[in-house]
Amino acid sequence: MDKLFVIKVGGNIIDDEQKLSSFLKDFSAIKEKKILVHGGGKLATNIAQQLNIPQQLVDGRRITDAETLKVVTMVYAGFINKNIVAQLQSSNCNAVGLCGADGNLILAHKRIHPTIDYGFVGDIDSVNSKWLNKLLTENITPVIAPVSHDNKGQLLNTNADTIAQEIAKSITGHYDVSSIYCFEKRGVLQSAGDEDSVISEITPLSYKELKGKNIIHSGMIPKLDNAYAALNSGVKKVIIGKAEELEQVISGSSGTSIINE
Amino acid sequence: MDKLFVIKVGGNIIDDEQKLSSFLKDFSAIKEKKILVHGGGKLATNIAQQLNIPQQLVDGRRITDAETLKVVTMVYAGFINKNIVAQLQSSNCNAVGLCGADGNLILAHKRIHPTIDYGFVGDIDSVNSKWLNKLLTENITPVIAPVSHDNKGQLLNTNADTIAQEIAKSITGHYDVSSIYCFEKRGVLQSAGDEDSVISEITPLSYKELKGKNIIHSGMIPKLDNAYAALNSGVKKVIIGKAEELEQVISGSSGTSIINE
Repeated sequence: MDKLFVIKVGGNIIDDEQKLSSFLKDFSAIKEKKILVHGGGKLATNIAQQLNIPQQLVDGRRITDAETLKVVTMVYAGFINKNIVAQLQSSNCNAVGLCGADGNLILAHKRIHPTIDYGFVGDIDSVNSKWLNKLLTENITPVIAPVSHDNKGQLLNTNADTIAQEIAKSITGHYDVSSIYCFEKRGVLQSAGDEDSVISEITPLSYKELKGKNIIHSGMIPKLDNAYAALNSGVKKVIIGKAEELEQVISGSSGTSIINE
Repeated sequence: MDKLFVIKVGGNIIDDEQKLSSFLKDFSAIKEKKILVHGGGKLATNIAQQLNIPQQLVDGRRITDAETLKVVTMVYAGFINKNIVAQLQSSNCNAVGLCGADGNLILAHKRIHPTIDYGFVGDIDSVNSKWLNKLLTENITPVIAPVSHDNKGQLLNTNADTIAQEIAKSITGHYDVSSIYCFEKRGVLQSAGDEDSVISEITPLSYKELKGKNIIHSGMIPKLDNAYAALNSGVKKVIIGKAEELEQVISGSSGTSIINE
């Protein structure tokens, strides 16, 4: 099977024009099939503030009301997505910018929660991997914004990490899939703050040990649990690494590779 | 050859949630192949005002500076485009929202003018009709926002009427193309203000007469000249009609059909 990289890039790169431009050049240079999933960044928050849309947090979770969804759709699926596509086109990468409504790519439902109404937040039901595969076969590079839909006309704000994961899992029947999560740090660190202490490989056994020694804790645990869920669903490799080192992360010479053996 | 309708809908419908929803239901019901090109509407102006982006007019023409382009990209290629796509999906129309950068769909250059710098406004060089045809063959309905790109990473604000026309012209080799321009009025009127005086058909000969009698004048002349340019480039029929009567306009029982004989 052909190799496919599903690469997720987040707000810290999106917000920095120069870093984003450099990242997109590196991304374009990848010879294998590839999909880019991008997150948001500060622009949506800034625009919401300027439009006087109050940001509601309930139990520390952001609520997506109708006005916030409008901003999310404008900024993520409009400004960020189309600027990424235009830049990739200029580097000879034939990109197409999509949200989950396009081609019925990501079907979701409004999140159901016993106590919190998250508003227009989507939990993913399915990915149209057949169409994604068709695009990839035509040498088109999908660039996916973190917005899904419910097939009843409603767009839904959806976590970009989750989209990247569900897309990777959905397409394992067609490709040898590696999931790359671009991160502020160079990978999972042995000693917090020491960028030279990257753990190059994590296996199920070493993951247990690292959790036991409290080297992997708090926010990293759901990330790694998700990585293992992906590996158990047919994704071949998950790598967490620095966006600025994409080429090395892809080749496995930088970042933390999470593997299943 | 299969029939293809290239339908342009403008701001007056886009701005009205109910009219838009009803229009999109009628659009979904069209059995033949179809492409939707949409314009902007007041939302972009409102958002620009709320973000304190001054609207510059030079000689009555709107100038697209970098901040205005940002709003245009957010509102046209983001909010409006994705909401249209989500609504079409809910009516079983497998739509994909695109701007001119996606799949290198519409290549343009920054407008060159001897005295006015229009800013980031694009004049179209070419349309990737090969890809459009591929999408149509897969029963995908393209929904196109009025934003093009220069293949050097720059997005460009581009007139939706012109996009609709260039797309229609580009694809005449693959389809029997009708261009539909949705309009506030029911068509070209014999007596201004009388919606029942629609001229159902205009030929080159009657066009000359109608201009001579000053029944067709001012803003209608460039519209009809463009219609004839399209007909002379292989488009089979151009119809100007009311969005609210799309079904009848498509069938030729409402609106003004502009034909070449």
